[in-house]
Amino acid sequence: MFDGPFTADLDPAERRPRLRLARSPRVGPVTFQEALQHFGSARRACRELSVVSEADIAREEQALAKAGGRFLVLGDADYPASLAALPDAPPVLSAIGDTGWLVRPMLAIVGARDASLAGRRFAAELAVTLGAAGFVVVSGLARGIDAAAHTAALPTGTVAVLAGGIDQVYPPQHEELHRAIAQRGLLLAETPFGTPPIARSFPRRNRIVSGLSAGVVVIEAAERSGSLITAQRALEQGREVFVVPGSPMDPRYGGSNNLIREGAILVRDANDIVGVFGKPQWASQAVEKPKEIPKDGSTAKVLRALSSVPTAVDELVRRCQVSAATVAEVLLALELEGRLERHRGNCVSLI
Amino acid sequence: MFDGPFTADLDPAERRPRLRLARSPRVGPVTFQEALQHFGSARRACRELSVVSEADIAREEQALAKAGGRFLVLGDADYPASLAALPDAPPVLSAIGDTGWLVRPMLAIVGARDASLAGRRFAAELAVTLGAAGFVVVSGLARGIDAAAHTAALPTGTVAVLAGGIDQVYPPQHEELHRAIAQRGLLLAETPFGTPPIARSFPRRNRIVSGLSAGVVVIEAAERSGSLITAQRALEQGREVFVVPGSPMDPRYGGSNNLIREGAILVRDANDIVGVFGKPQWASQAVEKPKEIPKDGSTAKVLRALSSVPTAVDELVRRCQVSAATVAEVLLALELEGRLERHRGNCVSLI
Repeated sequence: MFDGPFTADLDPAERRPRLRLARSPRVGPVTFQEALQHFGSARRACRELSVVSEADIAREEQALAKAGGRFLVLGDADYPASLAALPDAPPVLSAIGDTGWLVRPMLAIVGARDASLAGRRFAAELAVTLGAAGFVVVSGLARGIDAAAHTAALPTGTVAVLAGGIDQVYPPQHEELHRAIAQRGLLLAETPFGTPPIARSFPRRNRIVSGLSAGVVVIEAAERSGSLITAQRALEQGREVFVVPGSPMDPRYGGSNNLIREGAILVRDANDIVGVFGKPQWASQAVEKPKEIPKDGSTAKVLRALSSVPTAVDELVRRCQVSAATVAEVLLALELEGRLERHRGNCVSLI
Repeated sequence: MFDGPFTADLDPAERRPRLRLARSPRVGPVTFQEALQHFGSARRACRELSVVSEADIAREEQALAKAGGRFLVLGDADYPASLAALPDAPPVLSAIGDTGWLVRPMLAIVGARDASLAGRRFAAELAVTLGAAGFVVVSGLARGIDAAAHTAALPTGTVAVLAGGIDQVYPPQHEELHRAIAQRGLLLAETPFGTPPIARSFPRRNRIVSGLSAGVVVIEAAERSGSLITAQRALEQGREVFVVPGSPMDPRYGGSNNLIREGAILVRDANDIVGVFGKPQWASQAVEKPKEIPKDGSTAKVLRALSSVPTAVDELVRRCQVSAATVAEVLLALELEGRLERHRGNCVSLI
């Protein structure tokens, strides 16, 4: 569906000016493109316009590097081709993790933060099946559907697009998931390093979630919900919109059912999605098989550490001596089985 | 959508032969039409073919009249125009009740016998709103969705199409509802008087439910369910198919969601149905306003007679000294409020 990655790297003499232009006040994605067109290059635009200093960019780049990340500048070889095609492509993305995921076929799974247990289970099952079929699962690292999809897709590849800077863990209880995706998947952020998310960052983030993806799967979207913005962007970007239906008596499906009436594809299971694209060629390559929830010592360790008294997840990680990502996976599995309850302050308890 | 009723009555010299031809062994609706075409009239067909006797017809007509009913013969002035247009129009229908309902715009509401409480509540709400908008509600008098729709539509008009003979109460627990529809709505049956329903009567009945109606609303249809047959007949007959969606994790919506994928109209509320047809002219005429569930003495009487011990509905009717129809309405209202449980042998108890 998209062209392959650019084969030529961006000229280093143009790359740094692009960063400076992109980080300048009042330069949004569209202004960035217009400035490039008008001046012919970011280098010339930086000479003509008042842009941020070289030093500012160097400081951000250092902080990002220290966190294990780097910039993807529009024009770079590994800048995602699907995004580059958009008129409002992010001029710069911060990335932590393996950018190799970005050349795979991607599908977004988005939905309600206060999703039902059934909805989160459906998201997880879908993510596992789509992952096994060769798709990388993209989402926004929000509570509910997003988190269930990311967690289930960790073994087969997942990309989280953050609303704030790439170092900003939001919501705070997703610290482990944020870390796990950095280690095994890929984190992306358009907002500069160190900047907390603000309200208007979320719809901007949503256009990246849909823009990266060949299609967007919507699970439990109420009327006037953020997921509908993602679906709207997807339609504008020419991406497929897939929607899981629900009862008209459940307000969590109000927006979902509206989308289906407007022509979105009704999803009964993963076949309704894979059937539209066919299995990507990647499926036959060295895609890590989707793992069952760890049935080894980790689950037993975490279970022993859990009780009906809420315990901090950090505490669990320390006590069990297993990775934060593994703990997150075990907890999600228990949650989807209806055996785990989550509490404020990133605490969990057995039911 | 349909032509009005025929203005000329069927010639009595042709009407009785039509009844004899229709009731003869191996004469189905299509053979009936072919015989009419081939011989030019039922009168001539009766001379040429071996058909049931005049006496047999007279016996059935007497039994039907004794039950308060009469025949509607294809060609009669009050035979429903929407059915007459079908290639497999029932040659004869037995009718008990007010055939005046048949010249109103009709909509069918069908669905699962083992419907959820939420599904039955949705059916009842839809029936009340469609009734208020001027539509007569057609269904099959089955348990679950059918019964909820009929009961809620009693004040504004409802037509029940039976699979067996018009005197056959099926299922047995619908004795009151059967009686109430005979009194306030209309019962129709293609199967001869006195004949119990058999398996193949049900799909034949379904084509009449859809054939009478401008559209069919499907609520909770599993895969391979009878409601899907009604929807299929509706499509073949050029009727609209409306479907209430549900979670793909709920097998009661498997068939429903398939229908939406195949192009049926997704229903969120009654507006999605009324919007397709517009309010029929009947809405402005003397349509009885949809009543609230009787809040008068009846409800109090029935409530006093109920307890947590299962009581026969017949017993309730006798004890409360109110009509069977009123008891049925009060019981449905209580059931939809989650306060009533139904038991075998047509018994009910308070929860």
